[in-house]
Amino acid sequence: MMKNRQVRLKSRPKGIPQAEHFEIVEDTVPEIAPDQVLVRNIYLSVDPAMRGWIVDTTGYSEPVAIGSVMRSFATGRVEASRHADFKQGDLVTGMFGWQDYAAVEGGAIDRIIGGRDLPLSTSLGVLGLNGVTAYFGLLEVGQPARGETVVVSTAAGSVGSCVGQIANTLDCRTVAIAGGAQKKRLCRDEFGFDAAIDYKSEDLDAALASACPDGVDVYFDNTAGDISDGVLKRLNVGARIVICGTASISNWNPIPQGPRVERHLLVKRARMQGFVVFDFAERYAQARSKLAQWVKDGTIRYREDILDGIENAPDAIAGLYRGENSGKRLIRIASEND
Amino acid sequence: MMKNRQVRLKSRPKGIPQAEHFEIVEDTVPEIAPDQVLVRNIYLSVDPAMRGWIVDTTGYSEPVAIGSVMRSFATGRVEASRHADFKQGDLVTGMFGWQDYAAVEGGAIDRIIGGRDLPLSTSLGVLGLNGVTAYFGLLEVGQPARGETVVVSTAAGSVGSCVGQIANTLDCRTVAIAGGAQKKRLCRDEFGFDAAIDYKSEDLDAALASACPDGVDVYFDNTAGDISDGVLKRLNVGARIVICGTASISNWNPIPQGPRVERHLLVKRARMQGFVVFDFAERYAQARSKLAQWVKDGTIRYREDILDGIENAPDAIAGLYRGENSGKRLIRIASEND
Repeated sequence: MMKNRQVRLKSRPKGIPQAEHFEIVEDTVPEIAPDQVLVRNIYLSVDPAMRGWIVDTTGYSEPVAIGSVMRSFATGRVEASRHADFKQGDLVTGMFGWQDYAAVEGGAIDRIIGGRDLPLSTSLGVLGLNGVTAYFGLLEVGQPARGETVVVSTAAGSVGSCVGQIANTLDCRTVAIAGGAQKKRLCRDEFGFDAAIDYKSEDLDAALASACPDGVDVYFDNTAGDISDGVLKRLNVGARIVICGTASISNWNPIPQGPRVERHLLVKRARMQGFVVFDFAERYAQARSKLAQWVKDGTIRYREDILDGIENAPDAIAGLYRGENSGKRLIRIASEND
Repeated sequence: MMKNRQVRLKSRPKGIPQAEHFEIVEDTVPEIAPDQVLVRNIYLSVDPAMRGWIVDTTGYSEPVAIGSVMRSFATGRVEASRHADFKQGDLVTGMFGWQDYAAVEGGAIDRIIGGRDLPLSTSLGVLGLNGVTAYFGLLEVGQPARGETVVVSTAAGSVGSCVGQIANTLDCRTVAIAGGAQKKRLCRDEFGFDAAIDYKSEDLDAALASACPDGVDVYFDNTAGDISDGVLKRLNVGARIVICGTASISNWNPIPQGPRVERHLLVKRARMQGFVVFDFAERYAQARSKLAQWVKDGTIRYREDILDGIENAPDAIAGLYRGENSGKRLIRIASEND
């Protein structure tokens, strides 16, 4: 009998979820009810935002319940379908969770993956939520004008690298903030940022001053914390800050202290705005089509960090926050070609 | 010979400017050069923002130099003119400083006050920068929709009271935060807020919960600090925070610590935006015309706190921050009817 390995939430972390907060359990493969689809997962997604889906403070979605399968995006193949819109063999992406098999309603499926001119793994990265997050966060919330200075934190990551490359299409001056010499090099050489800062080894204030001679017009913020405090000092009049993630804050309960932002915002007539990509769900297809074109014509490059085997899942989010990945982190749990 | 009393900046305060930071000096009345106008000031304006014009940290304008006349708005009468656009007897308002007489270029004059159907003092308050600040800050930055909940800090003040009354024209639920029982009463009974909170005597969290049963959609922030920290906990998805002033922060150098805002903004997709009314200068006339109509038809009420005599000027800004005024603070230094 086929087994369904599931990564379940065992206990609720206070801050970053660690391996110990999960357990891997073997269950039976579920039966599907009418209108359901059975998906065999191939790639599981690992995203910084998953931390927020687990913590028990107010978030934008209900926290994952103790004992249930960890919520996640995944890409897989339809094994069986009792839903008119999906047939066996379809490659699909959606909210399938960290498990081998998911029995889902049609609503859990984001889309059928059409052409195979790009690797299947891109469906969860540069053509998935990461690329789409970069696209809408930068263009709709950050609203860079041609030639402005755009600063990006976690710039070597799957969202940040995409933000920088989209900003480059607008001839912006792009400045990467990343942790470590290797990521800094990646930002410059691979992703084409005009300047890159290794916040771990450089004096951030001095490095920002040198990298942003004309100040900062757009700050795409994936970290919060000290890095953001440094960038805020250099805002131009009318600057826009896109709050996309808070990777540097390990625990929001209680809320940590930091320098107050009001005066920077007031004096610079600047805007700081929270952004959750789900609000743009109706326009994903538009963004994906543009991103696919950019990937194909070489405008956007991407990196992936693929871990093989579901046993890597429990520690995978913690690893993101340790900064050990370079590129979009995925877990491959089956072959694309089965 | 006529004397020109001037209130000059004697030393630079670290935080709120106190009486000791100014001195009153008698000078001669200036001669006017070609294209200049000699204005006899009648009302001097006292505004919280003047604190920011004095401190020596980066602001939106050059700090007032030690030994020079304190920069301020004022309303007065043209005594002599060598400028084609102004003639003796014109009532004018502009950046004339804390002094009896100002010799100014045409550019320092904001406007000639036309009809006298409203008191001259309104030119510096409800029809001056305060009213215009409320108008653009609420409508252009806060962008309240009909029926939304609008919270205002320093709600009994000249800006805050106007914000609440404009929001009431949009059938918003208006919630005042003010200091003291008298100001709370004023907010409800005189300015028509739906609810009012005395932050000095009430538990702010509990009072906000009760006053904002549907959460907060727009927060017009004149204080920063603890009051704002309390309001931020109650933001609705898509909320907008207008950073107009920071009255509760006595010193921005060094920047004080407070709870980080990033997660509130992220989870609620909320926006926090700095606002300086000068950016809307080209549209003042439009706002003033609407405000005048609202004042005349009773939609907007206003209070004034008029001090008689220039000797009240040095302590007047400090008094604002002590919260001792109720309504727009002005200093009358000459009769309207001379």
